[in-house]
Amino acid sequence: MKLSEHRDMAAQSTLQLLDELAVFGAEESGGVTRLLYTKPWVDAQRFLAERMRKAGLEARFDRAGNLIGRLAGTDSGSGAIVTGSHIDTVVNGGRYDGAYGVAAGIAAIEYLLEAYGPPKRTLEVISFCEEEGSRFPLTYWGSGHLVGSHSWDQADAIADASGISLREAMEAAGFGDPAQPDPVRQDIEAFVELHIEQGIVLERQQLRIGIVDTIVGQKRYIVTLEGESNHTGTTPMGLRRDALAGAAEMVVAIERLAVQYGDPLVATVGKITCEPNTPNVIAGRVSFTLDIRLDDGVALTQVSERILQELAAIAERRELVFQAVNWLLTEPAPMSPELTGMLERICQEQGVSARRMVSGAGHDAQLLTGVAKTAMIFIPSRGGISHSPDEYSTPEQLSDGVMLLTDMLYALAY
Amino acid sequence: MKLSEHRDMAAQSTLQLLDELAVFGAEESGGVTRLLYTKPWVDAQRFLAERMRKAGLEARFDRAGNLIGRLAGTDSGSGAIVTGSHIDTVVNGGRYDGAYGVAAGIAAIEYLLEAYGPPKRTLEVISFCEEEGSRFPLTYWGSGHLVGSHSWDQADAIADASGISLREAMEAAGFGDPAQPDPVRQDIEAFVELHIEQGIVLERQQLRIGIVDTIVGQKRYIVTLEGESNHTGTTPMGLRRDALAGAAEMVVAIERLAVQYGDPLVATVGKITCEPNTPNVIAGRVSFTLDIRLDDGVALTQVSERILQELAAIAERRELVFQAVNWLLTEPAPMSPELTGMLERICQEQGVSARRMVSGAGHDAQLLTGVAKTAMIFIPSRGGISHSPDEYSTPEQLSDGVMLLTDMLYALAY
Repeated sequence: MKLSEHRDMAAQSTLQLLDELAVFGAEESGGVTRLLYTKPWVDAQRFLAERMRKAGLEARFDRAGNLIGRLAGTDSGSGAIVTGSHIDTVVNGGRYDGAYGVAAGIAAIEYLLEAYGPPKRTLEVISFCEEEGSRFPLTYWGSGHLVGSHSWDQADAIADASGISLREAMEAAGFGDPAQPDPVRQDIEAFVELHIEQGIVLERQQLRIGIVDTIVGQKRYIVTLEGESNHTGTTPMGLRRDALAGAAEMVVAIERLAVQYGDPLVATVGKITCEPNTPNVIAGRVSFTLDIRLDDGVALTQVSERILQELAAIAERRELVFQAVNWLLTEPAPMSPELTGMLERICQEQGVSARRMVSGAGHDAQLLTGVAKTAMIFIPSRGGISHSPDEYSTPEQLSDGVMLLTDMLYALAY
Repeated sequence: MKLSEHRDMAAQSTLQLLDELAVFGAEESGGVTRLLYTKPWVDAQRFLAERMRKAGLEARFDRAGNLIGRLAGTDSGSGAIVTGSHIDTVVNGGRYDGAYGVAAGIAAIEYLLEAYGPPKRTLEVISFCEEEGSRFPLTYWGSGHLVGSHSWDQADAIADASGISLREAMEAAGFGDPAQPDPVRQDIEAFVELHIEQGIVLERQQLRIGIVDTIVGQKRYIVTLEGESNHTGTTPMGLRRDALAGAAEMVVAIERLAVQYGDPLVATVGKITCEPNTPNVIAGRVSFTLDIRLDDGVALTQVSERILQELAAIAERRELVFQAVNWLLTEPAPMSPELTGMLERICQEQGVSARRMVSGAGHDAQLLTGVAKTAMIFIPSRGGISHSPDEYSTPEQLSDGVMLLTDMLYALAY
């Protein structure tokens, strides 16, 4: 069998595995719901463990419930080459977000083993237990454990919407054993994550592959405005302190400043709450979220301050009480220039159209940058849609990513 | 006893009656909840009927539950001079909205009778059963019956939040008897309503009385925008169809156009709904209410069309699907120039500072303009606040209104 046939088979195997995975937590909508530690999630992880074993890998769960499939390398002194992503989803999410990277990793290693035998360097594929933050108010519970960024104490402190603590849920699913060793991984040489873009850049530019330069940093705020609630009919325009009109001016200003700054800056107001939210009452209180993302940490801080200054000035002119609380800050996570350069060369050699780009979404890979050289590969998402049953990439697009990942793992491990 | 003492006593009596009325439906907040046909409402109307009888009036309920107190005039050929307002409230409303005009009417007629004996023209005070639309989705159920603008069939078609139909509620309260005659009133010569301003114009200008020229016409719309819901991190600013950013630009435009047009135009967005309303998802769908009020019907139509054109242009530029549904249109209701002139002269003679103004809120008086010469008197509201436990006017302000009403009823009926 020729190499190209093996690569094709890895792609075919990924498509089949994605179909099989989509059964766990399948919704009538065509979407998938696999929340951390729920039955569909447990069943899916167990199914994947079996699938890894069939592929010739050792499969084990770590203390948090990450599933790790391992193909030992012949060169015992070198670090591991790791791929993978997450299998948890948002409520009624898509079939590809996360699952694609896990399925592709298993298939790629399976066919590398078939084609070339055991690698020099140990190959691993990880199905991270949690990335989305859909059930509990935290994210990266899976990849965070590998790099030591999460504490076990958190498991008691947070609960899901029905009041079940993270620890209770974890133990009910058979994980969290305090006796189980849970060392921070220091033995990873490289981590390569394959994921759908979840954006429309590749589709619009008709490119097959995106090679991530940097996962953007994020600043998230909650902005609150207090004005004066009054009767819409009896309060002349000049005597108003309308919190909603003030918020509207701010949303327009945020958009204008982001457009002026230029790509890849994005700044978004996605959620707004208005009180009393009644047609014939001037809004007395409005709060909205502000989500700012950029690939440069210093510039992110500067542009965020510039935006907040403008908002404060609008509030002052309108005599609104203004508060902006910064509740989330993540630094940009640059990918390894060495790995991104390798990915770019493979694409050139294979004649696959590709571009470098930032990832505007967060991914498990950003956690790994602290312990390993890291890279991310994107394939196009139809309409940029994700977190939805409408999430879709074509079989050809899915295959492109699997083949690139396979080639990359070969280059790193053999 | 001198006339001025009688006028003072009418004012004192009004204050006392307001205290007594506030017991019915009293909330711990200090506010009042008297929804149509509920027990607090029934008790309050019965209490007022007794109070009218003590004042020397005949008191009767009409078919809908309006309470009518009558002092027959000696000149049987002339039409009635009528005052009054409503005693229903919003949920947790104030003590003055509506109740003030009813209490003042009873007290004014009581003391006119004491001071001058029977009037030439019949005097009436009406405690309208409903004006606020707080329990059932309709307004002016009380004054509408007097002028024939409501149909009894409506009583079966609409229900309150717990599913009780208007007819069920009406019959349970002892009203709605089909055998009871319910003629449209054609015998009213003049209707004068005393009410709190529910705005901040008189307070800001330190004036004691507002004489209403016109009750504004209203146009209310629901505007809906559809854009494209996408990931905030992965969708560049230039590739967005953000429904919330579009709505924000519209809210700013509405405010700007209203300010440019000038008083007394008001245009307000009081309610906004955003989907999915999630911090990290670009809004795919936003709807908001638009409430436009002006005292000139032709100009109201013109300015509404101008505003909607601007909104449609914003939607087109942003590639948002735009829909604006006009669900409410009321024409401006001009008050009688003869009556407003009389009120102005009385204020001048008494040395009471007053201004003519529009009423930006709707009132029972606007229904009466179809069958009688109509006038409205406003007194200041602290901070413009109403529909709230914080609704307040000082005893001096309340007294100013009662005295002007007493003088006006005297001028019209004696």
